Amino acid sequence: MRTTVSWQADGPATTLRRAPLDRRDLRPDDIAVRVDYCGVCHTDLHAVQAGDDGRSRQPLVPGHEFTGVVAETGSEVTGFAVGDPVAVGNIVDSCGTCAMCRAGQENFCHAFPTLTYGGVDRHDGSTTQGGYSREYVVRAGFAYPLPSGLDPAAAAPLLCAGITVWEPLHALGVGPGTRVAVAGLGGLGHLAVKIAVALGAETSVVSRSPDKADDAHRLGAHEVLVSTDPEQMAAARDRFDVVIDTIAAPHDLGPYLRLVAMDGTLSHLGHLGPISLETTDLLIGRKKLSSAGSGGRPATAAMLAFCAEHDITADIELLPSARVNEALDRLRRNDVRYRFVLDMSDLD
Amino acid sequence: MRTTVSWQADGPATTLRRAPLDRRDLRPDDIAVRVDYCGVCHTDLHAVQAGDDGRSRQPLVPGHEFTGVVAETGSEVTGFAVGDPVAVGNIVDSCGTCAMCRAGQENFCHAFPTLTYGGVDRHDGSTTQGGYSREYVVRAGFAYPLPSGLDPAAAAPLLCAGITVWEPLHALGVGPGTRVAVAGLGGLGHLAVKIAVALGAETSVVSRSPDKADDAHRLGAHEVLVSTDPEQMAAARDRFDVVIDTIAAPHDLGPYLRLVAMDGTLSHLGHLGPISLETTDLLIGRKKLSSAGSGGRPATAAMLAFCAEHDITADIELLPSARVNEALDRLRRNDVRYRFVLDMSDLD
Repeated sequence: MRTTVSWQADGPATTLRRAPLDRRDLRPDDIAVRVDYCGVCHTDLHAVQAGDDGRSRQPLVPGHEFTGVVAETGSEVTGFAVGDPVAVGNIVDSCGTCAMCRAGQENFCHAFPTLTYGGVDRHDGSTTQGGYSREYVVRAGFAYPLPSGLDPAAAAPLLCAGITVWEPLHALGVGPGTRVAVAGLGGLGHLAVKIAVALGAETSVVSRSPDKADDAHRLGAHEVLVSTDPEQMAAARDRFDVVIDTIAAPHDLGPYLRLVAMDGTLSHLGHLGPISLETTDLLIGRKKLSSAGSGGRPATAAMLAFCAEHDITADIELLPSARVNEALDRLRRNDVRYRFVLDMSDLD
Repeated sequence: MRTTVSWQADGPATTLRRAPLDRRDLRPDDIAVRVDYCGVCHTDLHAVQAGDDGRSRQPLVPGHEFTGVVAETGSEVTGFAVGDPVAVGNIVDSCGTCAMCRAGQENFCHAFPTLTYGGVDRHDGSTTQGGYSREYVVRAGFAYPLPSGLDPAAAAPLLCAGITVWEPLHALGVGPGTRVAVAGLGGLGHLAVKIAVALGAETSVVSRSPDKADDAHRLGAHEVLVSTDPEQMAAARDRFDVVIDTIAAPHDLGPYLRLVAMDGTLSHLGHLGPISLETTDLLIGRKKLSSAGSGGRPATAAMLAFCAEHDITADIELLPSARVNEALDRLRRNDVRYRFVLDMSDLD
């Protein structure tokens, strides 16, 4: 075993404390990553708050979008050398043999992908622990070279928020001339705007209040629609080929489906669970509903290359990792523009 | 006013009685149709049963898929002559000026299309009354020449059931090589199978019990999956590019979404109202949900031409119109293979 330092929640705790963490010894196809920067995702908040139900649970180390450098390589690793900049997202293994894995969609692995934390390691059955730690050990095939030119702190959120918005934009063929609306301007939404604009789409932002209009324009959006203004929403009816709905809380999909143009798609991200809608909101205009989250390895690599080419990273607030509980608390109140990233160097 | 004979429900009645019915005098762009055959759609049943809530209402004459011959033409009508075989579906007018109407999608008219019965006439504000009658007066532009070679009784259901399944099959690009599953083998489902097979698709039927397997094969299906057999459903996971869900009752969409292949679509037809689903059933495999019902004029004409070319009509049970209440009662119990059609000649 190797030992590192982490921020972890134990039992019902909803705050994280600094504690040592064991990492496995390197297998032949593993690399050890010195984690430099780890993004703070809504999923982390949910995972930490889940302790609130009073049930005992294993210690939890969140974090599934991080960058760092290779600290050591397993005996059979060829693609990485010590010192290489590297990035890891929310999947660290998959069965490798099912139709989805063979198609490069490890995120849909029929045997379920191994999640970066809270997952079950496919070899020793242990529970995976995440990137709020100074070191992570990962199968080299699930780590990505970090393209030069991308700031490693601001690039960390690309590995979860970035790929989550890239997947539907790419799958739906967004490009020059596509009319895209992004609903919700948060961690996911601000990256959706940047990527859609870079893809050449005519991009609008739909936001509850006009407060974020300046930001939206700065990010490249051509227009801002205020969702609480019925006239603006009515005027925008049937206008967008693709609506990317990044609103994290449960909400009525109807108003967003009505923005979708004939034969267009509403892609619903960043919220898991049951959703309900009126058939007629789909039927009228022959609209489609889809959902997305995460992506496979080829798409993740393509997204990183695209972001490097177009100089896209997240707008972040960088905090020393010792302020992780403050970051989670502010994220709960949506008080961040647009992603917290933890600087792990204070764990040394 | 012109007078004809109809089957109508008054006030809270849930049975239809024979009664005279006024039709408007022909406007310059109208034709009068002698109704020979009218299909019995689930919508008719819902409309008649809606009287059950005890509220008073106007008399109701159902029927929105019928064929007959032109009995008279308005002064400006050029496309039809007396004696021409003709067909009418569930839309008889629309605004003609909105983006949807201009795109030939009158079924999505922003000002709402005029329904064949229970609609509001755009000129005199009267409530439209349907095809369970010996004569119907309709704007000529919303009637279709019935292609020769199509049996007029068995063709009647094409005007609602047929176009409803044609729309998604066509919009989703179903053709040779497409893997299609049709869930539910009723009025809509059996036409979906015939049309999908004629389009060249590899077509399967998903049915609750194996009882309909022989019928499914006779209709051209290559395979029957029994939805109550978990092993069969699990083995068919991710297998179909398009799943056409024609199940009329509210039901869980999960099992049908799981049949959809990567990037494929579940098209949900024939049931209006709220639906709910689990995000993950859409997310895993990047699947899409759509809904369909009815179609525009160009699609309806194309569907009729396709059906004539491929000799497709509905499998019907033809009854004298005097047995309309028996037909509705048996439809309520799903006791029909696969569509009742009323022969209106007994109204003379």
